[in-house]
Amino acid sequence: MEDPEEVTTGQPVTTRVTAVAYDEGHYEEEQISGAEEWVACSERSGVIWIDVAGLHTTEPLEMAAECFGLHPLIQEDILNTDQRPKVDFFANYVFVVLKSLSIDKDQDAVLHGQVSVILGPNYVLSFHDLDQNTFEPVRQRLRYARGRIRALGPDYLTHALIDLVVDSYIDTLEYLGDRLEDLEEEVVERPTKDTLPVIHDMKLEMVLLRRSMWPLREVVGSLTRRESTLISDATIIYFRDVYDHAYQVMDTIETYRDMISGMLDIYLSSISNRLNEIMKVLTIVSTVFIPLTFVSGVYGMNFHYMPELTWRFGYPMILGIMLSILVGMLVFFHRKGWI
Amino acid sequence: MEDPEEVTTGQPVTTRVTAVAYDEGHYEEEQISGAEEWVACSERSGVIWIDVAGLHTTEPLEMAAECFGLHPLIQEDILNTDQRPKVDFFANYVFVVLKSLSIDKDQDAVLHGQVSVILGPNYVLSFHDLDQNTFEPVRQRLRYARGRIRALGPDYLTHALIDLVVDSYIDTLEYLGDRLEDLEEEVVERPTKDTLPVIHDMKLEMVLLRRSMWPLREVVGSLTRRESTLISDATIIYFRDVYDHAYQVMDTIETYRDMISGMLDIYLSSISNRLNEIMKVLTIVSTVFIPLTFVSGVYGMNFHYMPELTWRFGYPMILGIMLSILVGMLVFFHRKGWI
Amino acid sequence: MEDPEEVTTGQPVTTRVTAVAYDEGHYEEEQISGAEEWVACSERSGVIWIDVAGLHTTEPLEMAAECFGLHPLIQEDILNTDQRPKVDFFANYVFVVLKSLSIDKDQDAVLHGQVSVILGPNYVLSFHDLDQNTFEPVRQRLRYARGRIRALGPDYLTHALIDLVVDSYIDTLEYLGDRLEDLEEEVVERPTKDTLPVIHDMKLEMVLLRRSMWPLREVVGSLTRRESTLISDATIIYFRDVYDHAYQVMDTIETYRDMISGMLDIYLSSISNRLNEIMKVLTIVSTVFIPLTFVSGVYGMNFHYMPELTWRFGYPMILGIMLSILVGMLVFFHRKGWI
Amino acid sequence: MEDPEEVTTGQPVTTRVTAVAYDEGHYEEEQISGAEEWVACSERSGVIWIDVAGLHTTEPLEMAAECFGLHPLIQEDILNTDQRPKVDFFANYVFVVLKSLSIDKDQDAVLHGQVSVILGPNYVLSFHDLDQNTFEPVRQRLRYARGRIRALGPDYLTHALIDLVVDSYIDTLEYLGDRLEDLEEEVVERPTKDTLPVIHDMKLEMVLLRRSMWPLREVVGSLTRRESTLISDATIIYFRDVYDHAYQVMDTIETYRDMISGMLDIYLSSISNRLNEIMKVLTIVSTVFIPLTFVSGVYGMNFHYMPELTWRFGYPMILGIMLSILVGMLVFFHRKGWI
Amino acid sequence: MEDPEEVTTGQPVTTRVTAVAYDEGHYEEEQISGAEEWVACSERSGVIWIDVAGLHTTEPLEMAAECFGLHPLIQEDILNTDQRPKVDFFANYVFVVLKSLSIDKDQDAVLHGQVSVILGPNYVLSFHDLDQNTFEPVRQRLRYARGRIRALGPDYLTHALIDLVVDSYIDTLEYLGDRLEDLEEEVVERPTKDTLPVIHDMKLEMVLLRRSMWPLREVVGSLTRRESTLISDATIIYFRDVYDHAYQVMDTIETYRDMISGMLDIYLSSISNRLNEIMKVLTIVSTVFIPLTFVSGVYGMNFHYMPELTWRFGYPMILGIMLSILVGMLVFFHRKGWI
Repeated sequence: MEDPEEVTTGQPVTTRVTAVAYDEGHYEEEQISGAEEWVACSERSGVIWIDVAGLHTTEPLEMAAECFGLHPLIQEDILNTDQRPKVDFFANYVFVVLKSLSIDKDQDAVLHGQVSVILGPNYVLSFHDLDQNTFEPVRQRLRYARGRIRALGPDYLTHALIDLVVDSYIDTLEYLGDRLEDLEEEVVERPTKDTLPVIHDMKLEMVLLRRSMWPLREVVGSLTRRESTLISDATIIYFRDVYDHAYQVMDTIETYRDMISGMLDIYLSSISNRLNEIMKVLTIVSTVFIPLTFVSGVYGMNFHYMPELTWRFGYPMILGIMLSILVGMLVFFHRKGWI
Repeated sequence: MEDPEEVTTGQPVTTRVTAVAYDEGHYEEEQISGAEEWVACSERSGVIWIDVAGLHTTEPLEMAAECFGLHPLIQEDILNTDQRPKVDFFANYVFVVLKSLSIDKDQDAVLHGQVSVILGPNYVLSFHDLDQNTFEPVRQRLRYARGRIRALGPDYLTHALIDLVVDSYIDTLEYLGDRLEDLEEEVVERPTKDTLPVIHDMKLEMVLLRRSMWPLREVVGSLTRRESTLISDATIIYFRDVYDHAYQVMDTIETYRDMISGMLDIYLSSISNRLNEIMKVLTIVSTVFIPLTFVSGVYGMNFHYMPELTWRFGYPMILGIMLSILVGMLVFFHRKGWI
Repeated sequence: MEDPEEVTTGQPVTTRVTAVAYDEGHYEEEQISGAEEWVACSERSGVIWIDVAGLHTTEPLEMAAECFGLHPLIQEDILNTDQRPKVDFFANYVFVVLKSLSIDKDQDAVLHGQVSVILGPNYVLSFHDLDQNTFEPVRQRLRYARGRIRALGPDYLTHALIDLVVDSYIDTLEYLGDRLEDLEEEVVERPTKDTLPVIHDMKLEMVLLRRSMWPLREVVGSLTRRESTLISDATIIYFRDVYDHAYQVMDTIETYRDMISGMLDIYLSSISNRLNEIMKVLTIVSTVFIPLTFVSGVYGMNFHYMPELTWRFGYPMILGIMLSILVGMLVFFHRKGWI
Repeated sequence: MEDPEEVTTGQPVTTRVTAVAYDEGHYEEEQISGAEEWVACSERSGVIWIDVAGLHTTEPLEMAAECFGLHPLIQEDILNTDQRPKVDFFANYVFVVLKSLSIDKDQDAVLHGQVSVILGPNYVLSFHDLDQNTFEPVRQRLRYARGRIRALGPDYLTHALIDLVVDSYIDTLEYLGDRLEDLEEEVVERPTKDTLPVIHDMKLEMVLLRRSMWPLREVVGSLTRRESTLISDATIIYFRDVYDHAYQVMDTIETYRDMISGMLDIYLSSISNRLNEIMKVLTIVSTVFIPLTFVSGVYGMNFHYMPELTWRFGYPMILGIMLSILVGMLVFFHRKGWI
Repeated sequence: MEDPEEVTTGQPVTTRVTAVAYDEGHYEEEQISGAEEWVACSERSGVIWIDVAGLHTTEPLEMAAECFGLHPLIQEDILNTDQRPKVDFFANYVFVVLKSLSIDKDQDAVLHGQVSVILGPNYVLSFHDLDQNTFEPVRQRLRYARGRIRALGPDYLTHALIDLVVDSYIDTLEYLGDRLEDLEEEVVERPTKDTLPVIHDMKLEMVLLRRSMWPLREVVGSLTRRESTLISDATIIYFRDVYDHAYQVMDTIETYRDMISGMLDIYLSSISNRLNEIMKVLTIVSTVFIPLTFVSGVYGMNFHYMPELTWRFGYPMILGIMLSILVGMLVFFHRKGWI
């Protein structure tokens, strides 16, 4: 919306640029910075992967744009952290933007990060705005040549990165699933006034997850549809696998949404139930004692001529009458199922 | 998401591998284990059907992959018990994942299992994660050559297996339908605080059924669309029949959902109705006796000059007044329709 | 789901097989039973229409299958009374399943029947599970050669039968519309605890109608799309007309659903309104008499030194004070709009 | 559903048939009736427009069918006043059915009429069931040759008629918008028991409008898609303009629906708010006076030995205590924000 | 709907026509009025941009129509301020209508304006109904030749104008987001009777924004689909960028809608919670003092024979009994969690 030069992501984070070059036989890794190192790096042989973590200046983007010939709008998209997940197929590279999740255990909060991946003929560029070591597991698989990853090209590497992002949703949903179970117990056992905002926060979190996941799934879906020659047939089946996982994530989110909406119902009806309970206590006490008080009031009147007052057993008799009223009332409430 | 070697389904179950080979004239059946038996089995003539029940190790999967040349991702899909129902058309086999249901009568719960079926040119492989004899009825039909099953090829056998899975939904829905009727009676006749969570459990169960059934129907639908040469035209009409059944199951689930949402309304309004009833009792007793108590209070005052107190018939008169107030109140409540 | 031989519709009904053969010049009608009569009938010239009412054995189905060469699965579909409305285009016949409605005035209930129609090159077969004379009006039009029906072929006859089924929805909706008006009056004027289940029954009935009508409309729609050579261009325009009627039925159902959901709201708010009314009575009586009782209680105290008690006009004065409190309260409630 | 001969619209209305023939240079208008006049009229030169208002017999339909060669089903559709808006493209004419609206100011009600238009190569036929002068404005534009209407052909005339129908929705929505504003004020300021049914009537009216407008928009949409050679390219742009208006009408209806659903919420919560207010009054009065009454009750006891009773300042002291209880209570309620 | 000559936007606003002509090397800007200046202007070389702000007469439209040969319906669309956002592709120009937003800080209201843009081979015409300097930022970029704007043609200028409109949504949503946060705090902390209408106003505002944004996004979408030769391939990628922004705006609107619906729930349940609190106070006070009052009433009876009255410690004993009742009640309420 503005010229890209003026946009920054704002938070004081460290930028770490990790360059990797590999083929089936060898693996090199180094931290780079500055134009010369970028250029040197972009001219290596084999598959080149440059990973920028904690992106907060435009500098690495300008390096990347110059070395690999990227369109100026891509810079803007990568820096705009409100960017919706999407894939753009350019003539000689594919540009993917995704939302990744991570859990801040200290604050008990879900962090939403943004991951951009550019797949070229012999290179992969990845950017994330949070300075987390998100893609370290992939580097380890490369380093120790685990599985087929080093034999397959940059498209398989892209798959591995996107797979990690989808996995971050699965982990987050497991974490939220645990909190949801606690919340469900709280709603059924001991709901308080503060329970409702918590339920709504969960509901909103699900809405946000859904809003990130839905286009992410479409992105993966369009990567399986052979729209670019940069993705080989052998890799497409792996993308289809990620697509299945994305579907599962959507299903889990939907199930959680249904559970949350059920909790809302239970919470709201528990308020009504508590009102009923309060009213029952009031009604029982009032309807028992108000008639008795009336009876005692009658014999507290000062009429000169009230024969009962002079009877020998007037007082015990009236106490007996009161007792029968009391018992009658209790029987009535018992029949109503109130006590 | 992980390498398939590290994934297990977790529960301590017995794995039972039943191998069957048949054609129109003969039928062989044996329990197999170990690589040699698998290889021997895979080289039999006629239609070969290997059924793995209670899958919990990767061993049978590796055997199958080796003997029949399956893609590595298939192993992962079969072991991932959160897999969404789907069909994958490979070059020389069709891979189907389904969710089957069964009822645990002891625990009064619906068990969700996972069934995978691979249809090859002359073989069918089936896997389920629960160690139940799910497919025994099909083996019996084969054994005693009931119906056309032995004359028709592996595609018809696949149809028979999938038909059994869809039937497991019909049985489960009948079972849940009975419970739903009980629940409906409870909601209308004697709702308690514990009724609401039960209604929501039912609702959630329906959501889960729907979430398994919906993609299952799509799977069956795509099997009817001639997307693979492994399914003959003669068999497609049988798959279309299963597709109709799947549609009926969806309709039943939707009807149950509507019934459950109606129960929720009735439950919630019954709470309000009960509050109304409680309040009526309180209001009747209070509004009858509070004025009477006031009257008796007036004549309990100690003013020196209160002429009524000295009247000969003051006391009976005041009792009469009280009685008229009482009668008047009761008439008023009767007109309101409260008593 | 089972072999068709084992399925029966269960109710003790009479099966009546009416065979008709007609062309523009002549019309024959007879009741048939037994294989020979079926065969004789199927060899007649002109358009042959065999109508089976009250189907409860497989016998007529087997006759029909033999005489007209029907696929075995059709028998199963006809007998399975949970069959969803559908159309199947076979090589030389079209198979249509529909749900018809009728009203049981004695039980004030809507009966759901199943109608199957098979349209061949020169024949029409119709089956219904209830032993009602559903299709008699069509036979009358044929018998007395009313309109164009005898000049046009078996496709037009099929149209006439399906049109009758759609008309059964219109009649039923008119009947339900009357009941809905009564119900609306009840909800607004004198709602009781039993009103809610009735509303929900109506709602569920609409859901069921919608579930039968929706696929029925699709069936008619696909009959207008020239998918079979058995339906001539001249007849397609009549099917399109039925399609319009089906659309109207759907619209009416949707309108009724909206009306019912409005009734639910009115019912639920009427409960709250009644609670408000009860509380108003309680509040008025209590807040008037509780302060008065307090005043009388003050002068019922036994302090030795209470100057007011000895005043000459103490008693009338206090009665006056009480009256002013009473009047003040009533003015207050009047301003609140409560009385 | 029935033979067209037997259907009538039922209301005693006057049928008025106005025939117009025009080209750029001349304009003729006359009231016609009887077969001969129809035939004479249909043979005129220029564009022929025959407008039938207040249709209640089949006679004009039969004339039209004969003179212009219409399909028999069209008669049925025009007379069936429950007909859903639709367009049918026949070989040499286009048949359009629409719902028009008008406001009966006396009864404060929206009247739903049905308008049918048939566009032929050189003629336009229009029918409406209400005897209103709906299309008079178009005749005036023709008569006084206002705008381009006389230069353009029968397709532009058809556009002018349909535009008038869409305008009738805009007028009606303005009228309903005013009523909606009044209703909103009533809901917020002084809701009564009768407000809810009025809200629901408005909601249902919107549902009905939406149900007429939705297919109407589709009709106009398909007229813009060049499906018939009877509509020239120059006219299509005008139909597209009507299509935009139809879209605006849909948007307004949706906005009104949202407003109505907001009113429902406000109405329902106002009932709860009123209950809260009633309960506050009850609670304040009761909790103030019940403890005071208890205190006075204590000193109304007749124990022989009660030292306070004999104290010189016992009575004023107890009055002081009562006053402090009262003040304490009022402070408590003030802090709660109740008074 | 009416002849365009008769339509005016009604408000007394000043019309300001700013004509700009530029190419890479030069930039001219002037205020124009009157036919001659329009004609002179339209014959300039380079890209011509005429911007009409505060449109309220048809005059500038007629000038534009004459100079640039526009279709008469375009005039009508521009003046009809209820026009839905849309794009029309004419033979030699593209016509776009959009809704722009601005915030009236004095009235704390969102103003909805209408912006129309016409893109021709070498010119751009823009019209807005509010007399705001909406497009001044674009003129500044042109004036000072910032970025690529002067090098790229009229299609890029059109993109810049539409981008500004989409930005006006982003600004407005930020403003509304702040108000939403305040509202959320109010709902949770101190909801009053007036909170509900404010929530509903916010909800309705979101509905209106959504209704403007949804077609706006479609408009931008169709501009990216190469439907006109007036938009070059180099510019399409910029429109795709605007399309992404439009998507983000939609997502934000949806998130706000979910937040608002959550507030509604919290508001409604807070009313119930407050009722519960009121009832608790009433119940505690009533159930404590009503039994105590009864006890005091018993000993206020005037029976001649009441032995307790004569006991030496009768009075302190009865006070002790009352105290124990009080303590018992308080313990009971404490256990219930009410105090």
